[in-house]
Amino acid sequence: MREAMNRRVVLARRPVGVPTLGDFAVVDAPVPAPDAGQVVVRTRYISVDPYMRGRLWERPWRGDPVGIGEVMIGEGVGEVIASRDARLPAGTAVRGRFGWQTHAAASADALDVIDPSAAPLSTALGILGMPGLTAYYGTRLVGRPRAGETFVVTGAAGAVGSAAGQIAKLDGCRVVGVCGGAAKCAHVVDDLGFDAAVDYRAGQLDEELARACPDGVDVIFENVGGEILEALLRRINLHARIALCGAISQYHTAEPALAPPHSRTLHRCRARMEGFLVNDFADHDAEALAALTRWVADGRLKYREDIVDGIENAPAAFVGLFHGQNVGKQLVRTRAAA
Amino acid sequence: MREAMNRRVVLARRPVGVPTLGDFAVVDAPVPAPDAGQVVVRTRYISVDPYMRGRLWERPWRGDPVGIGEVMIGEGVGEVIASRDARLPAGTAVRGRFGWQTHAAASADALDVIDPSAAPLSTALGILGMPGLTAYYGTRLVGRPRAGETFVVTGAAGAVGSAAGQIAKLDGCRVVGVCGGAAKCAHVVDDLGFDAAVDYRAGQLDEELARACPDGVDVIFENVGGEILEALLRRINLHARIALCGAISQYHTAEPALAPPHSRTLHRCRARMEGFLVNDFADHDAEALAALTRWVADGRLKYREDIVDGIENAPAAFVGLFHGQNVGKQLVRTRAAA
Repeated sequence: MREAMNRRVVLARRPVGVPTLGDFAVVDAPVPAPDAGQVVVRTRYISVDPYMRGRLWERPWRGDPVGIGEVMIGEGVGEVIASRDARLPAGTAVRGRFGWQTHAAASADALDVIDPSAAPLSTALGILGMPGLTAYYGTRLVGRPRAGETFVVTGAAGAVGSAAGQIAKLDGCRVVGVCGGAAKCAHVVDDLGFDAAVDYRAGQLDEELARACPDGVDVIFENVGGEILEALLRRINLHARIALCGAISQYHTAEPALAPPHSRTLHRCRARMEGFLVNDFADHDAEALAALTRWVADGRLKYREDIVDGIENAPAAFVGLFHGQNVGKQLVRTRAAA
Repeated sequence: MREAMNRRVVLARRPVGVPTLGDFAVVDAPVPAPDAGQVVVRTRYISVDPYMRGRLWERPWRGDPVGIGEVMIGEGVGEVIASRDARLPAGTAVRGRFGWQTHAAASADALDVIDPSAAPLSTALGILGMPGLTAYYGTRLVGRPRAGETFVVTGAAGAVGSAAGQIAKLDGCRVVGVCGGAAKCAHVVDDLGFDAAVDYRAGQLDEELARACPDGVDVIFENVGGEILEALLRRINLHARIALCGAISQYHTAEPALAPPHSRTLHRCRARMEGFLVNDFADHDAEALAALTRWVADGRLKYREDIVDGIENAPAAFVGLFHGQNVGKQLVRTRAAA
């Protein structure tokens, strides 16, 4: 029997512009052994997320850079297969920052125990994990829409956007999703219950937004940036709120294109624009997770997962994010090279 | 005896760029008589404020435009000289939106009664009026600095900026004022107790800000816009707050110069930028005014007034705002042409 290996994806070089497959390399290494206080985890699902692009620059962007030759960062879920911490015996399902690899040694203190009987393991990386919490906080604590307001979410078919729009819908808003392509537009309206969708690829963004938002825009949940944000800012109402969650169209340029000063728009409209990160609201995790779990259980919050098989395909899944290939949460099922 | 006339300043033409004296005209008219429910007020002080520039465009900017030939808008204080409302007998001191004129008919319902024995009448247009309240709200309710943080206020020697900086100082901040010229810098440090001042005209803005803000910038109380704002945004800390009160450098251009997207900075720093108007917080006026009055009375909040005599000099006082001529609240003492 062949000895189990740890298959890992490392950063081979810093991307220039949109990442490509050649920026990564697959490397096999021995499965690690746990130090005192550590466990070794056999990962099952690895998350790929747009924010990871920020960690590929040489300079810090919301976190330290990944070094060349280092395993790509990222959250995963899996089972403990070797333990030197009595709290986490072998077989325990856990979530942690394992990186893109099939096996990882990690400090037991840094892991979350997951109950795989309560919800599918994969949801701990999606609707019941960081993306779900991000949607919850950006909507409830940053955007703070009121019933009857128009709430626009960009990247609406993605893991965060699809949840954010549904939460705003639960809060009584008119919800408009901006996404790329007719299929995604149909998905957010027909499957998720959004009131309208705008296809930014159709080339009529201003006109379509005007049609979808006849009463202007009160809250923007922003995942995309660039021209889409500019078009939305042209339509905001007095006291609008813009929750800056991401800017996926802007992650590849060190020097962004200049724009009309957002301060001017915010001043004129007495509006608020605010960047946030899910960690900023960690004090609320218990209540937020309880709400998300309840909504998923009773069918009011739907989610989709887009699953690629094989850790060696993590780069393709990651690159695909920037081409709008995924619908819902993009995951990689690791299938260990054992 | 010559009959009293109402001397008024009207908008003669729409300014192109920075307003000039020729954009205004002085016109004498009969003193009005009050309709039922109205009073006629003999104004004593008229306020000129940067925000008024916004009302000189053909299109609405935070309020309806002033029409050509119409009396310039603005708040004033004065005494009732004729009344058809029993609540406001002749002699009552009042504040209202009288415009730039020596006499005004106004609905009694729209006026605030002032107690001239409690504080000089002029303060109802400055430290105990709109500018003082603006400083209070922008600091306490928008910027929300915490003790030990670095609070930077632009237009620091102006009516609003000078008060905002002192309030942040009361709240335990390191307070840095940005203003134009050595005299204003000396004023905010020596007279108002700011920790440091930066002269934006000295040509070393980035270097001076770095020196004045060694721990970065946590809160910006913004009155100026343009290059000064850009330089400050380069120095903000995580979770910074930018209270957009004004943008005096930007009021003269319909199409502002493009800037690096503020959304990107806010996203990276998880910062908040928010436009506000004093009226947004009218529910808090009583508590805010009580605090301002107390601080003025016990000497913790200092104010200066820059007074020009003669309503016909209101245009010069107004134009002077945009050249940085005033220190403290710019007022016009009307000296009726009676």
